[in-house]
Amino acid sequence: MAKRKIGVWLIGAWGGVATTVVVGIAALRKGLTDTNGLVSELPPFAGLDLVGWDELVVGGHEIRETTYSAEAQVLLEKSHVFSAGALAAIASQLAKFDKNIRPGTLINVGPTIDSLAGPAAARTRKESAAQAVNRLAKDITEFKAREKLERVIVVNVSSTEPPPPDEIRNWNWGQIQKSLQTKGASPLPASTLYAIAAMQSGCPFVNFTPSIGSDIPGLDELARQQQVVHVGRDGKTGETLMKAVLAPMFAARNLKVMSWVGHNIFGNLDGKVLDDPVNKANKVKSKDHLLTEILGYKPQSLVSIEYIESMGDWKTAWDHIHFQGFLGTPMVLQFIWQGCDSLLAAPLVIDLIRLTEREARRGKFGVMSHLGSFFKSPMGTNEPAFAYQFQQLVQWAEAVANE
Amino acid sequence: MAKRKIGVWLIGAWGGVATTVVVGIAALRKGLTDTNGLVSELPPFAGLDLVGWDELVVGGHEIRETTYSAEAQVLLEKSHVFSAGALAAIASQLAKFDKNIRPGTLINVGPTIDSLAGPAAARTRKESAAQAVNRLAKDITEFKAREKLERVIVVNVSSTEPPPPDEIRNWNWGQIQKSLQTKGASPLPASTLYAIAAMQSGCPFVNFTPSIGSDIPGLDELARQQQVVHVGRDGKTGETLMKAVLAPMFAARNLKVMSWVGHNIFGNLDGKVLDDPVNKANKVKSKDHLLTEILGYKPQSLVSIEYIESMGDWKTAWDHIHFQGFLGTPMVLQFIWQGCDSLLAAPLVIDLIRLTEREARRGKFGVMSHLGSFFKSPMGTNEPAFAYQFQQLVQWAEAVANE
Amino acid sequence: MAKRKIGVWLIGAWGGVATTVVVGIAALRKGLTDTNGLVSELPPFAGLDLVGWDELVVGGHEIRETTYSAEAQVLLEKSHVFSAGALAAIASQLAKFDKNIRPGTLINVGPTIDSLAGPAAARTRKESAAQAVNRLAKDITEFKAREKLERVIVVNVSSTEPPPPDEIRNWNWGQIQKSLQTKGASPLPASTLYAIAAMQSGCPFVNFTPSIGSDIPGLDELARQQQVVHVGRDGKTGETLMKAVLAPMFAARNLKVMSWVGHNIFGNLDGKVLDDPVNKANKVKSKDHLLTEILGYKPQSLVSIEYIESMGDWKTAWDHIHFQGFLGTPMVLQFIWQGCDSLLAAPLVIDLIRLTEREARRGKFGVMSHLGSFFKSPMGTNEPAFAYQFQQLVQWAEAVANE
Amino acid sequence: MAKRKIGVWLIGAWGGVATTVVVGIAALRKGLTDTNGLVSELPPFAGLDLVGWDELVVGGHEIRETTYSAEAQVLLEKSHVFSAGALAAIASQLAKFDKNIRPGTLINVGPTIDSLAGPAAARTRKESAAQAVNRLAKDITEFKAREKLERVIVVNVSSTEPPPPDEIRNWNWGQIQKSLQTKGASPLPASTLYAIAAMQSGCPFVNFTPSIGSDIPGLDELARQQQVVHVGRDGKTGETLMKAVLAPMFAARNLKVMSWVGHNIFGNLDGKVLDDPVNKANKVKSKDHLLTEILGYKPQSLVSIEYIESMGDWKTAWDHIHFQGFLGTPMVLQFIWQGCDSLLAAPLVIDLIRLTEREARRGKFGVMSHLGSFFKSPMGTNEPAFAYQFQQLVQWAEAVANE
Repeated sequence: MAKRKIGVWLIGAWGGVATTVVVGIAALRKGLTDTNGLVSELPPFAGLDLVGWDELVVGGHEIRETTYSAEAQVLLEKSHVFSAGALAAIASQLAKFDKNIRPGTLINVGPTIDSLAGPAAARTRKESAAQAVNRLAKDITEFKAREKLERVIVVNVSSTEPPPPDEIRNWNWGQIQKSLQTKGASPLPASTLYAIAAMQSGCPFVNFTPSIGSDIPGLDELARQQQVVHVGRDGKTGETLMKAVLAPMFAARNLKVMSWVGHNIFGNLDGKVLDDPVNKANKVKSKDHLLTEILGYKPQSLVSIEYIESMGDWKTAWDHIHFQGFLGTPMVLQFIWQGCDSLLAAPLVIDLIRLTEREARRGKFGVMSHLGSFFKSPMGTNEPAFAYQFQQLVQWAEAVANE
Repeated sequence: MAKRKIGVWLIGAWGGVATTVVVGIAALRKGLTDTNGLVSELPPFAGLDLVGWDELVVGGHEIRETTYSAEAQVLLEKSHVFSAGALAAIASQLAKFDKNIRPGTLINVGPTIDSLAGPAAARTRKESAAQAVNRLAKDITEFKAREKLERVIVVNVSSTEPPPPDEIRNWNWGQIQKSLQTKGASPLPASTLYAIAAMQSGCPFVNFTPSIGSDIPGLDELARQQQVVHVGRDGKTGETLMKAVLAPMFAARNLKVMSWVGHNIFGNLDGKVLDDPVNKANKVKSKDHLLTEILGYKPQSLVSIEYIESMGDWKTAWDHIHFQGFLGTPMVLQFIWQGCDSLLAAPLVIDLIRLTEREARRGKFGVMSHLGSFFKSPMGTNEPAFAYQFQQLVQWAEAVANE
Repeated sequence: MAKRKIGVWLIGAWGGVATTVVVGIAALRKGLTDTNGLVSELPPFAGLDLVGWDELVVGGHEIRETTYSAEAQVLLEKSHVFSAGALAAIASQLAKFDKNIRPGTLINVGPTIDSLAGPAAARTRKESAAQAVNRLAKDITEFKAREKLERVIVVNVSSTEPPPPDEIRNWNWGQIQKSLQTKGASPLPASTLYAIAAMQSGCPFVNFTPSIGSDIPGLDELARQQQVVHVGRDGKTGETLMKAVLAPMFAARNLKVMSWVGHNIFGNLDGKVLDDPVNKANKVKSKDHLLTEILGYKPQSLVSIEYIESMGDWKTAWDHIHFQGFLGTPMVLQFIWQGCDSLLAAPLVIDLIRLTEREARRGKFGVMSHLGSFFKSPMGTNEPAFAYQFQQLVQWAEAVANE
Repeated sequence: MAKRKIGVWLIGAWGGVATTVVVGIAALRKGLTDTNGLVSELPPFAGLDLVGWDELVVGGHEIRETTYSAEAQVLLEKSHVFSAGALAAIASQLAKFDKNIRPGTLINVGPTIDSLAGPAAARTRKESAAQAVNRLAKDITEFKAREKLERVIVVNVSSTEPPPPDEIRNWNWGQIQKSLQTKGASPLPASTLYAIAAMQSGCPFVNFTPSIGSDIPGLDELARQQQVVHVGRDGKTGETLMKAVLAPMFAARNLKVMSWVGHNIFGNLDGKVLDDPVNKANKVKSKDHLLTEILGYKPQSLVSIEYIESMGDWKTAWDHIHFQGFLGTPMVLQFIWQGCDSLLAAPLVIDLIRLTEREARRGKFGVMSHLGSFFKSPMGTNEPAFAYQFQQLVQWAEAVANE
């Protein structure tokens, strides 16, 4: 079979998650690692002819200036992940991908993210929203042409933005267009501008962050008009995955959750950005609605996310679940999750690239509602329990395999 | 609607689980407690016309001599469960149920359980297995007649027996009958004798313990012949419930479980019995097979159950799950479960009574394969994941509701 | 030996800690409980002729209106402590002590505490600070006369006040007097007014709360002038006790603490008061200075205290200590403390009453610097490590025993 | 000041602890690491003129055949400790030390350790105990001469032996000598033979393992006769350190420990050796006596150590402490210790080398009773509480500084 050439366009291209995605793709190509953590390598997906590691070419947008090797080295030293040997073996591949990175936009990213901008991104500050969208779209189109790619999947893995004004949440495509064309500052956040740029370039858009991205009616309109698929929001990697797994157990056993307290500590760049209370608001909200959806009532709940520098990329969550059993007896479940954030997120990003590419190849468009198991706030589905979300994914795979 | 009269016949009738079942039924009747912990009170089961609290009459077999009030008082003082006021309010009801308790059998229960026997049970030591079955069956039949019961559900909630000899595990009904009739000691354990007595009295049999009970081909033959339903084994209340919920998450995320260590401590009578390594073998086996079934490979695993007197009825489990994420990164999930064993088990026993009664009322017989979510080693189903076991139960409820 | 009669005057007299103190004294008198938790019952204190349980008479100030039996019943039902039988046996003793409770003051207690006031305390709102001091002192003097007491020990166990203005922290007695006599509102908080009232009545003052109380130079002046002993602040019961025990270990092993995160959840009245960020500030400060004192450097630290209603009087603390070992290796210690706040505090309060009475009997006055092991922010000592604080206490006991 | 030349002779010279000691010394020499974890670098020891990193020369006995670089690489890859860059920088130093390693003895090490022997050690199997002692002593003497060393400190860091027969525990030097000279197998274990060889070569002996080593009256006789210092047993690195810190807190608060359960899991070579129940007995005993000594009574206790391969050198301990507070209230403290065993042990070994060298330089001999804070079962002291053991060490340092 002739090799495909598929582009991966990462927003936040030199961040921890993106760097791990790129290290992962490069290591998988060279056979330096196994496929642990990759959902798309499980048996139900074996017959789908998903895109291969050596068929992927990476580029992206980024506001800082660095390289994949430099970022990978920081992860190695600070968080004790990767191996020095593997990094050396893939260094030239990483350098090739570095050449495909272009400056992102700083529009409505908030002061904390803005303060991280390098010179190239800083020079874009004078752009209007419409100019930014055109530039971002051009970068993607040129990448596709330059690398002779069949298709480009755009994935947002950048840091969490502050929440946008409520008004835009229900905007249709007409309102969005008008806002772009109006003189003066548009309230549209960067994540939505990237989504528009992707769709206008004919590319699927995946939003792995809590930022709003394409989760606006007008963007779904655009997706259908452009015949592209899209999905999001907020990759479900750690504590919330646990919630989506454990809360259904309490519900199915009729054990009343009186309170659910979750404290998260971590020390990577995302953590620094989330230390800004405005950006944090977006994240905590994404983590908290789940319980009510699954349980059918709202227990007292508390979610904290704190930046503790020494933790590096390791996120530790302590959850204390106080529940009432039979005859009013209070009982406790506690869990401690010690996971490396980027290493949990990256394989899911790769899965989403492969599954999105497959769905695009099928000629589908609009929201991919079968991907709920990947997201904290999944678009297109009301199913909050992980087990049943995963069942939806497997059923999709069966349907595709039978085509 | 005329009130039904349904009998509940508990094996191990004055044990911690049984006492809590009885306290629970009495408290529910008087409206002294809510229905937390009762699965059968969840919305999917609302339309099934399940048997009500005031329609249940309790009796049972027991080898010790005590009363429900005395046993409940010990739980109150040692384990800080129940309320003194509620116990006072139901004392006369408990005393009525006390009168329906008859001596159990000590055949093949092992020396640790045997040593707990009171005078009445001790006097049965000379019985052959066949004599025991006849006596046990007569107790049930008389209970049904005396209390004018439509149906009696027999539930084994006694302490874990030592494992029986392997040879009997595949016996057909003919072999079992022959063993009963042969002169000399039969290898059939007490739990199986109780199951035979129940079925021969035309009663459904539910085995909430790790003991073998009716999990022998010959017993299923007998069940079909007698047109009764049966099910088991080993109520899934705490750590194993967590395994059945968490292991599918690791599987669905392709996260490789390298090791799963679980340490359980508790201090009730069951704990004392399990401190005998022979009885413990039966229990640990029931807790350990699950991981391999769900994950598809066998991680290094360790399960310990230790008797720590100060814990009373509170079981604390610490589980340490060491798993490998993307690019070989080791991560850890730990959980600590602090639950009161009898209070977790009792509502499930009540659920099983209600659901079994309903299935019997439908005129079904043989193994109830839709009840897998209640058991560590469920009979009649190969589905090990809790979420999908629960789905089977809900589908059953939908089918029954549509009849 | 003739029986002594010693008064115990509790500020916050019907609060959870005070109620537990009173239940404890009454239960000890009747021989209904053992002496677990009482430091003063350890061998080093055996020869000191400390005051006995039947020699204590209780009274106090309180702003709410309730009774000991009612408050004890709430603790029994909500937090599963005490036994119903014991409460019944001591009910008449509790009722006697109820008669000695008088309305406290609401001056500078902050709006959260103020909102809890009953009618009697509400009627004192028009008092000036000087008037309040006089009334409070009169209550104590009358108690002493009415009950024919040799001595009265005043102990503050009320909820935490908002921090006072910084200016007063270094006031001498002259400045304090002037502030009391000036027309208009005095910045002196309630805890200090109680301390003045106690000392002016010739009574020792013990401050078990984070409120400032007698920790002002002018109050020590007053204590010396009145020849009374005093001490404080903030009983060391749970998480901070652990810090005072564990941090010296890290220091002695030269293991560098990179971060120390502590999250506390609990649901009693104190918790509700601390949910007011102003009151909380006082508490968190008291918990946080310790690490720097013991380690000699300031690790990144985080202390949260959150009100979770379902927890009742049970405080759960999760602490995550990230430390660096040899060759830069990061390691982790986590602990989970599940203690019942009032039950941890009450015996220490009883110890402080006994040890303070003993020191007063010796004819000493001023700060009791040997009691540092009881406090989070001990007065009169710079020793932050628990083991060495306890050594100071034992040395004091040896000195007293040799007199 | 002229540079000293001090020898370090490690028993178990290529094991995990020894390898980390050697990597540490080499890295400290080159300034590649800071001094975290080294007690002897704390302020109280600053004026003692302790031996410097570049004054140490390493040799030792070992039964396997490998190199420091190979062993360090395994730790790097399996346990994610050390840095690849640092290992490269010290490779030539490690290779020099490799040349000083000689074959150890297999006498009475038990079958599990014996099975690890390389060809050189295997060839010594025919030696009698007396021959072994002579050979081992000769190795040390030749090392001292070859490297022109002022003094050699012998430290046992080998795997735990099976417990020796009880009879030898009280042997005097005459009995030991007789046993060595008798034809046929001597019951003296390898650790004692190494101690004799060290002392007969005029060298101090430090036993960092649970093996009996010099903890026999006859060995102390020999030490005094040879005018050498010695000390042991069993480095206090993790869970037992925590016990020695926490148990005094419960004692000082009169909180009754009802049960103390400790489960340890780890995956290094020591773990494999301890998987042999005979070797494990020695270890568990060393961990368990402490509680009774500190508390003055024996709570129910449980200590398990299990080999879980995936853990590598990382030891995780979960301890559950169930204690009774005031008015009989049960409460719980749990801790989870996640430490890297070799990295915790190695700095203490280096401290012991330096402090032992200093004491030898003072001209002292016999047991060094001031080093109790380093050991689980310290020789020469009855003080079990860590804080007071450390106080003894600081007082020793003050005395030495004042000489």
